[in-house]
Amino acid sequence: MLWTRKDLVSIQELSTDEVSLLLDTASAFKQVGTRDIKKVPALRGKTLVNFFAEPSTRTRISFELAAFRLSADVVNMAADTSSLTKGETLKDTARNLEALLADIIVLRHSSAGAAKFLADRLQASVINAGDGAHEHPTQALLDTFTIWERRGTLEGLHVAIIGDILFSRVARSNIHALQKLGARVTLVGPSTLVPRWFEEMGVTVSHKLDEVLEDADVVNLLRIQQERQRKEYFPSLGEYTSLFGLTKERAKLLKPDALIIHPGPINRGVEIDSGVADCAQSLVMDQVTNGLAVRMAALFLCARARGAGAGDVPTV
Amino acid sequence: MLWTRKDLVSIQELSTDEVSLLLDTASAFKQVGTRDIKKVPALRGKTLVNFFAEPSTRTRISFELAAFRLSADVVNMAADTSSLTKGETLKDTARNLEALLADIIVLRHSSAGAAKFLADRLQASVINAGDGAHEHPTQALLDTFTIWERRGTLEGLHVAIIGDILFSRVARSNIHALQKLGARVTLVGPSTLVPRWFEEMGVTVSHKLDEVLEDADVVNLLRIQQERQRKEYFPSLGEYTSLFGLTKERAKLLKPDALIIHPGPINRGVEIDSGVADCAQSLVMDQVTNGLAVRMAALFLCARARGAGAGDVPTV
Amino acid sequence: MLWTRKDLVSIQELSTDEVSLLLDTASAFKQVGTRDIKKVPALRGKTLVNFFAEPSTRTRISFELAAFRLSADVVNMAADTSSLTKGETLKDTARNLEALLADIIVLRHSSAGAAKFLADRLQASVINAGDGAHEHPTQALLDTFTIWERRGTLEGLHVAIIGDILFSRVARSNIHALQKLGARVTLVGPSTLVPRWFEEMGVTVSHKLDEVLEDADVVNLLRIQQERQRKEYFPSLGEYTSLFGLTKERAKLLKPDALIIHPGPINRGVEIDSGVADCAQSLVMDQVTNGLAVRMAALFLCARARGAGAGDVPTV
Repeated sequence: MLWTRKDLVSIQELSTDEVSLLLDTASAFKQVGTRDIKKVPALRGKTLVNFFAEPSTRTRISFELAAFRLSADVVNMAADTSSLTKGETLKDTARNLEALLADIIVLRHSSAGAAKFLADRLQASVINAGDGAHEHPTQALLDTFTIWERRGTLEGLHVAIIGDILFSRVARSNIHALQKLGARVTLVGPSTLVPRWFEEMGVTVSHKLDEVLEDADVVNLLRIQQERQRKEYFPSLGEYTSLFGLTKERAKLLKPDALIIHPGPINRGVEIDSGVADCAQSLVMDQVTNGLAVRMAALFLCARARGAGAGDVPTV
Repeated sequence: MLWTRKDLVSIQELSTDEVSLLLDTASAFKQVGTRDIKKVPALRGKTLVNFFAEPSTRTRISFELAAFRLSADVVNMAADTSSLTKGETLKDTARNLEALLADIIVLRHSSAGAAKFLADRLQASVINAGDGAHEHPTQALLDTFTIWERRGTLEGLHVAIIGDILFSRVARSNIHALQKLGARVTLVGPSTLVPRWFEEMGVTVSHKLDEVLEDADVVNLLRIQQERQRKEYFPSLGEYTSLFGLTKERAKLLKPDALIIHPGPINRGVEIDSGVADCAQSLVMDQVTNGLAVRMAALFLCARARGAGAGDVPTV
Repeated sequence: MLWTRKDLVSIQELSTDEVSLLLDTASAFKQVGTRDIKKVPALRGKTLVNFFAEPSTRTRISFELAAFRLSADVVNMAADTSSLTKGETLKDTARNLEALLADIIVLRHSSAGAAKFLADRLQASVINAGDGAHEHPTQALLDTFTIWERRGTLEGLHVAIIGDILFSRVARSNIHALQKLGARVTLVGPSTLVPRWFEEMGVTVSHKLDEVLEDADVVNLLRIQQERQRKEYFPSLGEYTSLFGLTKERAKLLKPDALIIHPGPINRGVEIDSGVADCAQSLVMDQVTNGLAVRMAALFLCARARGAGAGDVPTV
């Protein structure tokens, strides 16, 4: 199939074939990382603007490195240091970036829908790097890629996503990606953070981690963002860990071949025990490496669909 | 003619031929932006330091992208995060950048004369990206280029510059550029911000916008920088808009082919009505695109004059 | 001899031959800076992460430019803006950078031993850009290179290091480098900042600058970091200058061919008189230029030893 989208705004809107194509393309690009010279000329002369209206060094660097691998030039723009945004609307800022002939805008923004808003109004490619509690598509793709790489398929796997689902764009994007690829999803956490109505998305909701662990093929532990938590939803950290943390004890309940993933950065001792985070079943570092490949794929496919002449996927 | 200056410090000191050469060169470079691969090797191996002692994401990014188009390497340096400037004079900081073999220093600084000070003391090219209330030459060049591109000439055009002229480096650079190219300039604003003595520069001073609009070929609306305004000079925002804002009503006074420009970022509803800012006569986005071309021209000509081997202007 | 270290963590652990090889390699790279196109392809496709957990624009830019000269890609990461470090250990942050396939990590950190800690745990090259009061090897190499370039040898020279030795990583790295190359070192400063026990390092300790100046071949004036000084150790600034500043008067005591160096940024009028800082004997600007060459050498040798295929040193 051919990728025809200039933007990557959400997983929800993608077809299963599109998700698969992204993973296949990422797989080809991952090989580039093993070469001595880790660069392909696919986006030479193209400009990527990393527009982060919420801070995120981790994701920003991953996109920046992905762009370098594709030979693109990168401009970083943090909203808090940005005079572009002083008294200016998001649309005006974005139109400016387009007038500067930016080919790709990677946007992180606190408002759900911000990436879609820009994508609809700009000729540039817009890659959603997280919009409010809506979606974070490249995170879901790298999570899915990491499972797929180990298991060869997502079909029929049981994936448990654990933590603050209510406010998590990572969870939402993951649910869509996993279901499209045939996995079964269980959401686990306190009832305040994992309300029953998530069942409408076709997932199972559970408030008892121990029961889920025994049957899960993959557990995806979301980061507890202490600094962001709203008190009225969230128990104390100690209480959270005792009920929903993947402690050493609890990890013994897992199947021997169950995989552990986490979007990072890890709060060791909170949502996951430090030793468990580093055990052989934990794919946390693979996720980081795969994030690079997945972002190369997203940048490449969207730029090419836009007619920015990105050339061919490197043959492996 | 041949460009012989290693620096671009002010429009005032340029000859009419030099201004024209900058615009011609920008025109050639603007074509580069329409190519599939938007890069020329003119400044390959050269280093540009974006030294912004006042914050300005917009101008910084424009220079950064212009440098990328010319294949230069770019280092960004914001003064507030800079240990270079701790207890160090501007001259010491600049000498350090030169000792690091920087070829071009783009300087934004709050002191009028800062760019000239460095240009006189360094072998590196110095490009003034705004020095106090003195000059902002590349802004004036992009404004002029934008008019020139539409009208074919500046000769005989009547340009009104509206707003806080007293503290505006953009206004000063524009007055010089416009007059050198044969345009007639009227400055409009409250008498506190547009004092009579500006007439010594050979311009007309007016405090009544409506009278000027009917005759203007171009209106250049300066940004009202609310955060910077000194209360003793400035009326309330509402009062400013009612007297000097380009409202929908007032825009009807304009000639049908009058052009509207604005250095951005726009305060929609303050110095210009939102709809007027987006109308067909408004060239705000063209200005941003042209800024890239004008900055490529300035970087290229100054680096070549310095003997930094920049090669030829790309033939169109 | 062949360089086999993937990291540059300290001068102390290097052999004399290794220090010499670094200087020889820097000498070859310094020639690159005199070419019209100041780039060699040695690290093309390699990624350097400038990870500065303490701010330092000066050192960061020097490494960034050195990397550009070697055709590497550079990502900047300041700890204070870094979500990577939120609730994350240094080790986790570093493992993430490695998982992103960074080839070289340049680390500045407030803890002595931070660079060594990472070097032992990562496959990436780790270059110490200053760790607490421990070492700052590239600073010592550029100081040593600057003397060596002028005098042809360090053998038998008498170098005085003046200032806050107790808390200075620059002093420690310099002592090691100078001794390995056969120079004799005298430390000078108030007894609180230059305690007697430094003599165990094989240096002379003095609290009387005037006596030392007459015999010194090189004086290395450390920067007085007013903002960091602990009151209980440090006299008033005026008192410091009167006793240990290189005033105009005191500079007359120097041998006619004595060299003056300073790691910068200079506090004119504090540790050194402004005129003296700019006199012919002062090599402060040479140090900056040599810093670039020395850092190119360090990056190149470590990357090549890691098997990152850096190719040959450019022949001069």
